[in-house]
Amino acid sequence: MRTNELRKLLEEVKDGQIEVDKALDHLKELPYKDIGIAKIDYHRELRNGYPEVIYCEGKSIDHIQQIIQEMLKGNNNILATRAKEDVYQAVKEICPDAAYHALARIITVKRKEVVTPDSYIAVVTGGTSDIPVAEEAAITAEMLGNRVERIYDVGVAGLHRLLGNLEIITNAKVIIAVAGMEGALASVVGGLVDKPVLAVPTSIGYGANFHGLAALLSMLNSCASGVSVVNIDNGFGAGYMASMINKL
Amino acid sequence: MRTNELRKLLEEVKDGQIEVDKALDHLKELPYKDIGIAKIDYHRELRNGYPEVIYCEGKSIDHIQQIIQEMLKGNNNILATRAKEDVYQAVKEICPDAAYHALARIITVKRKEVVTPDSYIAVVTGGTSDIPVAEEAAITAEMLGNRVERIYDVGVAGLHRLLGNLEIITNAKVIIAVAGMEGALASVVGGLVDKPVLAVPTSIGYGANFHGLAALLSMLNSCASGVSVVNIDNGFGAGYMASMINKL
Amino acid sequence: MRTNELRKLLEEVKDGQIEVDKALDHLKELPYKDIGIAKIDYHRELRNGYPEVIYCEGKSIDHIQQIIQEMLKGNNNILATRAKEDVYQAVKEICPDAAYHALARIITVKRKEVVTPDSYIAVVTGGTSDIPVAEEAAITAEMLGNRVERIYDVGVAGLHRLLGNLEIITNAKVIIAVAGMEGALASVVGGLVDKPVLAVPTSIGYGANFHGLAALLSMLNSCASGVSVVNIDNGFGAGYMASMINKL
Amino acid sequence: MRTNELRKLLEEVKDGQIEVDKALDHLKELPYKDIGIAKIDYHRELRNGYPEVIYCEGKSIDHIQQIIQEMLKGNNNILATRAKEDVYQAVKEICPDAAYHALARIITVKRKEVVTPDSYIAVVTGGTSDIPVAEEAAITAEMLGNRVERIYDVGVAGLHRLLGNLEIITNAKVIIAVAGMEGALASVVGGLVDKPVLAVPTSIGYGANFHGLAALLSMLNSCASGVSVVNIDNGFGAGYMASMINKL
Amino acid sequence: MRTNELRKLLEEVKDGQIEVDKALDHLKELPYKDIGIAKIDYHRELRNGYPEVIYCEGKSIDHIQQIIQEMLKGNNNILATRAKEDVYQAVKEICPDAAYHALARIITVKRKEVVTPDSYIAVVTGGTSDIPVAEEAAITAEMLGNRVERIYDVGVAGLHRLLGNLEIITNAKVIIAVAGMEGALASVVGGLVDKPVLAVPTSIGYGANFHGLAALLSMLNSCASGVSVVNIDNGFGAGYMASMINKL
Amino acid sequence: MRTNELRKLLEEVKDGQIEVDKALDHLKELPYKDIGIAKIDYHRELRNGYPEVIYCEGKSIDHIQQIIQEMLKGNNNILATRAKEDVYQAVKEICPDAAYHALARIITVKRKEVVTPDSYIAVVTGGTSDIPVAEEAAITAEMLGNRVERIYDVGVAGLHRLLGNLEIITNAKVIIAVAGMEGALASVVGGLVDKPVLAVPTSIGYGANFHGLAALLSMLNSCASGVSVVNIDNGFGAGYMASMINKL
Amino acid sequence: MRTNELRKLLEEVKDGQIEVDKALDHLKELPYKDIGIAKIDYHRELRNGYPEVIYCEGKSIDHIQQIIQEMLKGNNNILATRAKEDVYQAVKEICPDAAYHALARIITVKRKEVVTPDSYIAVVTGGTSDIPVAEEAAITAEMLGNRVERIYDVGVAGLHRLLGNLEIITNAKVIIAVAGMEGALASVVGGLVDKPVLAVPTSIGYGANFHGLAALLSMLNSCASGVSVVNIDNGFGAGYMASMINKL
Amino acid sequence: MRTNELRKLLEEVKDGQIEVDKALDHLKELPYKDIGIAKIDYHRELRNGYPEVIYCEGKSIDHIQQIIQEMLKGNNNILATRAKEDVYQAVKEICPDAAYHALARIITVKRKEVVTPDSYIAVVTGGTSDIPVAEEAAITAEMLGNRVERIYDVGVAGLHRLLGNLEIITNAKVIIAVAGMEGALASVVGGLVDKPVLAVPTSIGYGANFHGLAALLSMLNSCASGVSVVNIDNGFGAGYMASMINKL
Repeated sequence: MRTNELRKLLEEVKDGQIEVDKALDHLKELPYKDIGIAKIDYHRELRNGYPEVIYCEGKSIDHIQQIIQEMLKGNNNILATRAKEDVYQAVKEICPDAAYHALARIITVKRKEVVTPDSYIAVVTGGTSDIPVAEEAAITAEMLGNRVERIYDVGVAGLHRLLGNLEIITNAKVIIAVAGMEGALASVVGGLVDKPVLAVPTSIGYGANFHGLAALLSMLNSCASGVSVVNIDNGFGAGYMASMINKL
Repeated sequence: MRTNELRKLLEEVKDGQIEVDKALDHLKELPYKDIGIAKIDYHRELRNGYPEVIYCEGKSIDHIQQIIQEMLKGNNNILATRAKEDVYQAVKEICPDAAYHALARIITVKRKEVVTPDSYIAVVTGGTSDIPVAEEAAITAEMLGNRVERIYDVGVAGLHRLLGNLEIITNAKVIIAVAGMEGALASVVGGLVDKPVLAVPTSIGYGANFHGLAALLSMLNSCASGVSVVNIDNGFGAGYMASMINKL
Repeated sequence: MRTNELRKLLEEVKDGQIEVDKALDHLKELPYKDIGIAKIDYHRELRNGYPEVIYCEGKSIDHIQQIIQEMLKGNNNILATRAKEDVYQAVKEICPDAAYHALARIITVKRKEVVTPDSYIAVVTGGTSDIPVAEEAAITAEMLGNRVERIYDVGVAGLHRLLGNLEIITNAKVIIAVAGMEGALASVVGGLVDKPVLAVPTSIGYGANFHGLAALLSMLNSCASGVSVVNIDNGFGAGYMASMINKL
Repeated sequence: MRTNELRKLLEEVKDGQIEVDKALDHLKELPYKDIGIAKIDYHRELRNGYPEVIYCEGKSIDHIQQIIQEMLKGNNNILATRAKEDVYQAVKEICPDAAYHALARIITVKRKEVVTPDSYIAVVTGGTSDIPVAEEAAITAEMLGNRVERIYDVGVAGLHRLLGNLEIITNAKVIIAVAGMEGALASVVGGLVDKPVLAVPTSIGYGANFHGLAALLSMLNSCASGVSVVNIDNGFGAGYMASMINKL
Repeated sequence: MRTNELRKLLEEVKDGQIEVDKALDHLKELPYKDIGIAKIDYHRELRNGYPEVIYCEGKSIDHIQQIIQEMLKGNNNILATRAKEDVYQAVKEICPDAAYHALARIITVKRKEVVTPDSYIAVVTGGTSDIPVAEEAAITAEMLGNRVERIYDVGVAGLHRLLGNLEIITNAKVIIAVAGMEGALASVVGGLVDKPVLAVPTSIGYGANFHGLAALLSMLNSCASGVSVVNIDNGFGAGYMASMINKL
Repeated sequence: MRTNELRKLLEEVKDGQIEVDKALDHLKELPYKDIGIAKIDYHRELRNGYPEVIYCEGKSIDHIQQIIQEMLKGNNNILATRAKEDVYQAVKEICPDAAYHALARIITVKRKEVVTPDSYIAVVTGGTSDIPVAEEAAITAEMLGNRVERIYDVGVAGLHRLLGNLEIITNAKVIIAVAGMEGALASVVGGLVDKPVLAVPTSIGYGANFHGLAALLSMLNSCASGVSVVNIDNGFGAGYMASMINKL
Repeated sequence: MRTNELRKLLEEVKDGQIEVDKALDHLKELPYKDIGIAKIDYHRELRNGYPEVIYCEGKSIDHIQQIIQEMLKGNNNILATRAKEDVYQAVKEICPDAAYHALARIITVKRKEVVTPDSYIAVVTGGTSDIPVAEEAAITAEMLGNRVERIYDVGVAGLHRLLGNLEIITNAKVIIAVAGMEGALASVVGGLVDKPVLAVPTSIGYGANFHGLAALLSMLNSCASGVSVVNIDNGFGAGYMASMINKL
Repeated sequence: MRTNELRKLLEEVKDGQIEVDKALDHLKELPYKDIGIAKIDYHRELRNGYPEVIYCEGKSIDHIQQIIQEMLKGNNNILATRAKEDVYQAVKEICPDAAYHALARIITVKRKEVVTPDSYIAVVTGGTSDIPVAEEAAITAEMLGNRVERIYDVGVAGLHRLLGNLEIITNAKVIIAVAGMEGALASVVGGLVDKPVLAVPTSIGYGANFHGLAALLSMLNSCASGVSVVNIDNGFGAGYMASMINKL
């Protein structure tokens, strides 16, 4: 509910262009669609080709179908994250042009073009096992209208692999650093490169890794400046924020 | 063992209406039925149509059948929580009128009517994935004789959805706020509405959510006054306490 | 920003009783006073003699004085929690009628009478060391217009002490159970009494108590129904919520 | 390696009754049998009919068979804990007189009689779900030669159930209190009864129970004197220690 | 409230030897003395010279004085634990024969003799720094009427020190093993000696010791049988439980 | 060691413009100054008026003086964070034009002008107690050449205070959300505003707040998109990263 | 990127033996092979018969095959850890001489001989269940060219088993101590033997073991000198480090 | 109690060279001196000039004086760690030649020369604030007879500082990597250098560092091979183990 919209609405009320009760309804009901099990947002971004987003984990296939059915009515792009193979099959039934990105566990529906800036986002991983989370970030960023460069398996155990790719990392507008184990990649990248680094701890590891806690704490305590952190395995969050920054 | 009952018993002993050993037995054996694997309570609430309650998780199907068999003798209402489909099938064998609420994982047996006050309980969720816990709360409250209003998927990421439903929330006598992820819903509802809020953290989330710990800590530290918290995913506990408050 | 107020404002705009810009200002500026370091709320409760509340811990004495100075302009009751002796001395300088409750670390200023219902709140503690938290709850409840009965040092290590006070506890409308160590008091009270129990874990204990974590977890996992929990040592929160329930 | 045995051995060496190298071997090899994957102890207790013990969890069925095969050579009693059904089938192949206690997940082989004192051990549980751990404790204690009284489902949510069984609990020489959820049973029993209480937290519960952590912390912080604690779900440990105390 | 006492009371009521209201009062008020801030128990043990116990930490000196003043009326022995020097000075004012055990932080008042059995309790520590906790255990046990043997600084880093004292440890009826750091002492003692071992983790250590958590977890997971655990630094609890066992 | 610099160096070597050993020295020694206790970086940013940064906590005053003495030789701007009053006094001795920002615990030395873009950073806090951390962020951003708007005490317990300041928050290029307690502010701001949000959990709170852990987990699990998180109380980190983004 | 190699490269550039761009390429691309999903290191150790290492957990079978295919081109030894049976089957398809060590979950490919020193590594376990982790350490060390002595099931619950094998442990150059439960083995071995001890906590245990945390903390807090620790279940890491030390 | 010594003793007993009781005494009393509060070890190392070690934290000054008095009788070198200034003053009274290393909080007494090998130990720190822990390691290693090279403040935030010192680090026989914050230094050094790395996490940091936990977990999860870890701030442990390895 922005101030500008509020002022406009008040002026319409004053000018008699709109009834009080209707204005009230507008204020309360306009920005989302209530389908019982969910209240689907109609963000203004949709006008620009931005996708509607649905997080599938923990939702029944039936619910997911209902929600996507509703989303499809607007003929918008759709980004469904944390979707397993069976979810994809169910979505395909009601939307044959849905594409599945298996590694990233993402379903995409592309109905509109999105404007993409010249600058790009670099997605860097410590190891091969971190690729699924990195792909979630990369595909999210691409669906939001960004160019993405992938630089995978350049962890600090073999620093020369990272140094050998420094140029493409340095020239990005914003960097997503994805790493499990001890998560030192974020600090090393943050120390080498003068760009904002969004660190994504992954749950790759075992024992005292505690399902990503080690990497998370490591990244939060980074001695390098210019590093901020999202939740463990939250590739989507990093891709979304990187897109925001890349488009500034 | 209430003081009043104790006084009455002592007076009966004094008046010779009851033998010492029998009084002793009364004191020790009366209020429950021992069936070996369990000691089933006969709460006075049963007189008012309140259900007997059994928590099924961690109990063998054989034990659950024994306990419900015993409960059925009193012709009381029964509320069996955390019951999977197979438990329901087993209960149905011995009690054909048992109903199953799949989302809430609850079995109910309704043999008596319960008095229901005019005031109602609002059950609010942050997302669609929180609905199972919310339904556990809602059905528990209904079985205990309460009117429930469900307002689902109004989390703080889209504040306008919550504001658009403020009226029905505000007019409740007590509110159950069910949320996973960061659990901010409880604070926002507590800040907007002048009613007691029972916050239920759910285990919905991943990574640094730590199976509901994030939402639990968030709710315990709520900067809004008038919020208290039950265990993670404890829809039953919230429904029970809300019923107590709604009936005051 | 309640729906009713919104409707009224819109109607005034429509009727020309109020200018658009002024209405806009109303919507944005009315409900609080901005004094730079703080934005002091003018809750509607103030009309009923309810106190304005300030939590003192972590605020400089200079800031506390500024905030209370502003609050005093409304001639309202004031409840300042977590106030050490030196804070009280500073408040007294600008408000000579301020009273100090040393055990509870609370400063109160009483300028208006509050309506108090007949029903009462029972505040129960496990031990003598839990009294400061219990007093924070009790005095908060009293300042909000409630009668409070204090039953202290009735922990489960000597169950007869609790049973000997069962009558006064049972007859309360709502019970605040304050306990440190293993916090079993909440479960035992919840099992014996058919009233809502607000459990307050305290940080009393040592070693594997982990500053109240043991009592907190114990209370959250209570096997008794009708128990909800507030933060460790949060006497204020329990007193506030108990007042809400007592006045329903 | 007791001082007495050492002295005797040294004297035999001095008296030439035993060679130096043989004495050395005695010191190093006598008390256990090395079968490669395991070094099986021959505790002196075996002379008294005490069982040899094997903890099965995490061992392959092949290893378990090898170890039990070796144990059977001594014609001793055997107690195999944490044994699933398939382990039992494998043991039965090589030892047809092995008995299986399904609830307790224990296999027993009884070849010798054990002396049993008159005093008994009381095993008390909070709920029906705690019975498996309680049975592990009870059967362990029985195999070690003790009389056991089982009092199940007397948790603090219905205190009268516990009070109704106080006599049999009070008359035990040592009490094992088994409880999950908030584990308050140990404190309440410890407060009511003047006997050593061995508290066994169980992993029964959910959410902020953290797989038994809540009950464990609760029991460690018990405000009742005379309570000590074993590991979560460690029925065997409690049964073993209770046997030691019962036989003092 | 024992069954026997209850039966006797009921019989007195039946025989008219006691009024109903008086019996009721007996049931409610007899076993403790309410002095407002505390409800002091009159345990039956007092008849045998057992001390009354007060835990001083977290109580104001004024409260401690009030409580001890009340205790002194019964001319009983008193054991005040966790008492700093200034508490002792305050107690001495009202009780000049109070003795102070500085290392153990215990105040004792001895007015009656306690019967002491022939068997003894061994108190063993891993290091010199664990001595304060060990002394709390030892003096508690002595005040409760037990002979105590102290074997200090025999930690597993120098196993020969432990082996050199094995005889006196083996001959005890029960052993208290006090250790910080990694707390391995309990396992080693439990493995060498066939007596009940009460393990007391201490908060001695630093870093990943987490104030005694390392020793606590180590002791709870002891691979030796016959070990149970009390709270971190809980010398009193171990001394009390050891006394119970030593007197069986 | 950027690729470009490396190429240039190699070309100079090839052209004989620089000796091999000298090139080697360049590679190893150029970018920092070794003063024994520290190795002070000469980041290229210094050319643009960017400050040299020193984190004072945990360093001795003598060390801080040595380091700042060295920094002053370059006549650069200096930003010394986490500096207590006594550190400031010591710095002032060797640098009389040093300024002290007491709330933020920051010392600044301004010797050069920094270019500042038109866009601004909004720094928002939940409460008055969060101001010190917010000031650390704000002053850091200002020293790095940014315009900052401060909006303090707009936490979610009084949502209207936040809504009343939405315009100035919405128009920022990047937002720093500083909050303790349950940290819900980040989610609510992230949900209302379409700009990157850097969330800073503070250690303000008590009990189950666990020194900022509650707010940290809450922010990491934010259900709003476009939120990333820095360490608890890390105002500097947020200010630095916001500056990077504001200057893109 | 060693200083020596850097100097040599610079000299070649200076002497015109190598082009600038080629030198640059050398610096960036030489030490690894980029196959898209992974960047495979060519450590210099390969010249000495050292294996290339791949950690299989969390990698898809397809990725593992690609990586090993690439590794095989160099005709090097290969050590694939954390490989389940199905991974082995897939590797065997492309490399028929691959051997599988089922207990250790390791695949080895042996194409070259490795030089092995005379001194040996002792691998010691507390129990039979720790053998898989111990075998991971032992086989890793053997593949790296070391003689290994295995001493299994000598935990501290039966100290005589350890003392009986002291000679072979003492004569090792470095000792790997593998233990779950409370992990006391590391301290006891460290106290008895004057050699570096690498402690490996295992996840063997239950309840308050917290998947190896108890053993980990225990080993980190060892009161014995000369003990350092690797991650829970990290047999590979211990074997690798022991090899480094054994070859010094 | 080594096998060799045992054999020799047994042979002396056999040959009548030593009485049984005396042999027994030897076995029990020889290797340490019991002074009541402590049992001081006489390690064989003392013959080689190795110091006796005392950890001062948590010991009273009186106890420390008694222990050092006893140690001085052997005219050995002494290393007293975690000694504050006042401890040093007390030690100086009884031992005027004691030296104090203030940063490292170590007292040393040097009475004998120690043989020192040619190889050296490199002690590397991430920051200036880690120096005290590094000095504890360095001085420990020096007192044990090692040459130490100190390379301080080369953390990964400025990787060039580390690369610039790679030669001296690479040429060490063993490396001690000391770092707080996120502890990435250990991984980066482990990845660059082919020598055993002993990682020491320090408690330097704040917030989600949790007093060194972040660095500890980071180091335990290092993706570089050849890294093992000691307790947080345990400079002594790292120095001792490094000495063991350096002298192999």
